[in-house]
Amino acid sequence: MQNKKLKALSKESNPLNITLDSISISTSIIKNPLLSFSYAASGIGKEHLRIFQDIVESIDVNKKVNSLLNSDHVNKSENSAVNHHKCRDVKSTSFYQNEYNKLKETVNKIREESVPETLIQIGIGGSFLGPQMCIEALKPWAIANAIKTPKQCRFISNVDPDHVHTQLEGINLKKTLFIVVSKSGTTQETLANFELVKAITKLSGIESIEKQCIGITCKGSLLETNYNFMHLFYIDDSIGGRFSTSSVVGMTILALCYGTDIADAFLEGAVQYDSVLTVNEVIKNAPLLNACISIWFRNYCNHQALGVIPYNSALQLFPAFLQQLICESLGKQGSIDGEPLSYETSPIIFGEPGTNAQHSFFQMLHQGSTTTPLQFIGFKKPVIDTPVGVKNHTLLNSHKSAQIAGLAMGKNDPNINKKFFGNRPSTLIIASQQSQKVLGALLSFYENTVMYESFLLNINAFDQEGVQLGKVLANNLIDSSKVADPVSKAYWDLLNK
Amino acid sequence: MQNKKLKALSKESNPLNITLDSISISTSIIKNPLLSFSYAASGIGKEHLRIFQDIVESIDVNKKVNSLLNSDHVNKSENSAVNHHKCRDVKSTSFYQNEYNKLKETVNKIREESVPETLIQIGIGGSFLGPQMCIEALKPWAIANAIKTPKQCRFISNVDPDHVHTQLEGINLKKTLFIVVSKSGTTQETLANFELVKAITKLSGIESIEKQCIGITCKGSLLETNYNFMHLFYIDDSIGGRFSTSSVVGMTILALCYGTDIADAFLEGAVQYDSVLTVNEVIKNAPLLNACISIWFRNYCNHQALGVIPYNSALQLFPAFLQQLICESLGKQGSIDGEPLSYETSPIIFGEPGTNAQHSFFQMLHQGSTTTPLQFIGFKKPVIDTPVGVKNHTLLNSHKSAQIAGLAMGKNDPNINKKFFGNRPSTLIIASQQSQKVLGALLSFYENTVMYESFLLNINAFDQEGVQLGKVLANNLIDSSKVADPVSKAYWDLLNK
Repeated sequence: MQNKKLKALSKESNPLNITLDSISISTSIIKNPLLSFSYAASGIGKEHLRIFQDIVESIDVNKKVNSLLNSDHVNKSENSAVNHHKCRDVKSTSFYQNEYNKLKETVNKIREESVPETLIQIGIGGSFLGPQMCIEALKPWAIANAIKTPKQCRFISNVDPDHVHTQLEGINLKKTLFIVVSKSGTTQETLANFELVKAITKLSGIESIEKQCIGITCKGSLLETNYNFMHLFYIDDSIGGRFSTSSVVGMTILALCYGTDIADAFLEGAVQYDSVLTVNEVIKNAPLLNACISIWFRNYCNHQALGVIPYNSALQLFPAFLQQLICESLGKQGSIDGEPLSYETSPIIFGEPGTNAQHSFFQMLHQGSTTTPLQFIGFKKPVIDTPVGVKNHTLLNSHKSAQIAGLAMGKNDPNINKKFFGNRPSTLIIASQQSQKVLGALLSFYENTVMYESFLLNINAFDQEGVQLGKVLANNLIDSSKVADPVSKAYWDLLNK
Repeated sequence: MQNKKLKALSKESNPLNITLDSISISTSIIKNPLLSFSYAASGIGKEHLRIFQDIVESIDVNKKVNSLLNSDHVNKSENSAVNHHKCRDVKSTSFYQNEYNKLKETVNKIREESVPETLIQIGIGGSFLGPQMCIEALKPWAIANAIKTPKQCRFISNVDPDHVHTQLEGINLKKTLFIVVSKSGTTQETLANFELVKAITKLSGIESIEKQCIGITCKGSLLETNYNFMHLFYIDDSIGGRFSTSSVVGMTILALCYGTDIADAFLEGAVQYDSVLTVNEVIKNAPLLNACISIWFRNYCNHQALGVIPYNSALQLFPAFLQQLICESLGKQGSIDGEPLSYETSPIIFGEPGTNAQHSFFQMLHQGSTTTPLQFIGFKKPVIDTPVGVKNHTLLNSHKSAQIAGLAMGKNDPNINKKFFGNRPSTLIIASQQSQKVLGALLSFYENTVMYESFLLNINAFDQEGVQLGKVLANNLIDSSKVADPVSKAYWDLLNK
């Protein structure tokens, strides 16, 4: 996305000069359902907003959104619709409604009999990053509400045998329920890991672990035909792996762990936030503005990365989830029509919870040679809201406020090493309290940001051709009927001899 | 560090053109104790190596290393020596030897009586990132060797009360041993969290949790004077937080969790790798070459970030550990003598284990608009080396080899979205098998890389002035005797009303 006006503006406002006062802070905010989005410290002014709005209209973003919501095949390269919004609005489609109802019925029956002692989901990429993030995120909520949960809820993802052995350690395998997730039913890591789990459980005297397994896959896939699972829940091709958290891929383990009410509330939060999808004004639609700001940072300010800092330890895994969502969706070099691009696409995503991050890489953010924009996420109240914890939450929020201010405003000092240049931009997402509904809204916020960004950049956010080459080269190494390329082979020798 | 020859070379080799064949791959490797370092796919050629060597000699890096090892006050701004190498070579200094012996004696007594059911370390920054990384890293090893370990080994870091409550959940508090770590004895988060732990355990009927606590701090600190801990182990000011993993800060919980032999072996590995410290030839000293390459990437190729990808799930927390080590040490804007810098300092560090990362952000690395260099870490054999896991480890290593090759070599295709431009540089660290000794060597590799890089950049890697402003602003918000700045206050209002 190259825009002459933005280019002129970037030259004019270089170096960035963030001016902040209490009025701008209280007014530069978008209040959407469940979440508010503050852009006061982003360096975005009225002129930016005007140009953003022009671009949104000239590209006719709204038409693209409607086309997606209309199940047109907007994933052109794979000739597929993109239905994750429908999938969570379960009433909208009988297929999704049936699968979700089947899931709820099954889970309720299992939990009524007894909550499984251990849950293990086997899957990689979107089959674990979003689901694991949600399980971690709601732990405090489960404690606050005395929800009966499994003792352990684990994930087997990496095709590293040490990882598989470690995840199976210290648990009663007979009292473990497995969920095996592969949309295509052919995911190499997931199948190899399931076979390893089968071998290990067999050595422990379990004849057929398949009887302790739920499968999640597309109808008729090899996962369905090759195994005899206890239950099967279906998804379809129009739900991309990284957009599958609010499908049965994420909701099965969420419901098994915390109950079906929580899955309902999570989906409700996402659907509620999706209500801004067709709002066409950048100052009323936070994910749309966030997409514009992200492109501004990446293309006009030369910021290669974006840090995401939740002031909430339960969101520890949120940055890792966003790495896939954002980098896999936007890390493209060609337009959706197959043309080379002359502009930048995905930022690198990284992040850790505050205040931990302050004691890690914040030195670099304040005084490093390169400006890196941040996105803060904050909550007004803790989830476990007891009198003894009040002081700690006060500290947490004071630090969050202070960091935004310090990064933006800086502080002069004659000693260069004690000087803070300031003008380091950030945005802030605020919710009253972390909960399953708010988590659903956060998911929607970021999924929709990515969608808008792909429309603005004219790229396909829903395919991932860039992961193919590595798969082919690896396969050529291990399949004796194939010819390995000499470079892969030389590294293979280095790693094995 | 501005160097005319490197600048000329960067213009000449722009765009980067990585040429790889089996000979260059087998020869572009440095074999240091326990670890090999392959730079074949980094795009670094003989001309680079010559210039690197010139720079190393002209800056007299060796003299700076010796000055540091000689306990000169190389941390100028804090007028302090930098002794973490001595601290792990315990024989070298009676103070470190005494503390380490005291630690071992205490831990052996505790473990002989009974291994604690739960260990919880309370600390932030270097008091948790390195120690937690080590505990996670050695889990497979403990399984393979049937080591008796605590049921849980947890860390309380963030001043988020939900985090503290979550970490204390599902355990028998009476059978929990706490380790409280604050070098200065004044770390705000650690003290607030320990007070919260005291309040929560009191509500559970534990009169004085201090009797279940080990303290780690400087002699005479407030942590020593204000509490009555069961045991105290001392460090001193010359051990920076982010360099304290191989001090009692990391070794206490490591020894309590896995036994004192493991702590011994970890330190031995680090000391063994430290033997390359004074080797002055870039082609024989991997951390020195790694420092040169990092500066090359950051300053001459405009790569703002570095991804670290261990093909080993037990090293899951390694990138987060490196974020503090690298970004806090090198994220500076002034020279060690207080002069403004005209060049770039720290890269942004991010990473996840492979193959997980392949299903996350590798799309961006292969096809995104910006080149981001990677550092791979690989092992020839798994730790839990059983026949059933062989296939999975073969897959793991085939993917690692294929990714390095694919990123470097690319693949042509008339369809831009199926094309791989290649020339995406990486380096590779290889060890035979992950173990406590190899982990110690890895720590040494990165700590020494950071040290060399700071010498080459002429900055102080051992202070962190950039974290002060946020602390002051936060304190002004919560201390009623202080005046809060209006920007922090306005954000505070946004987050609390």
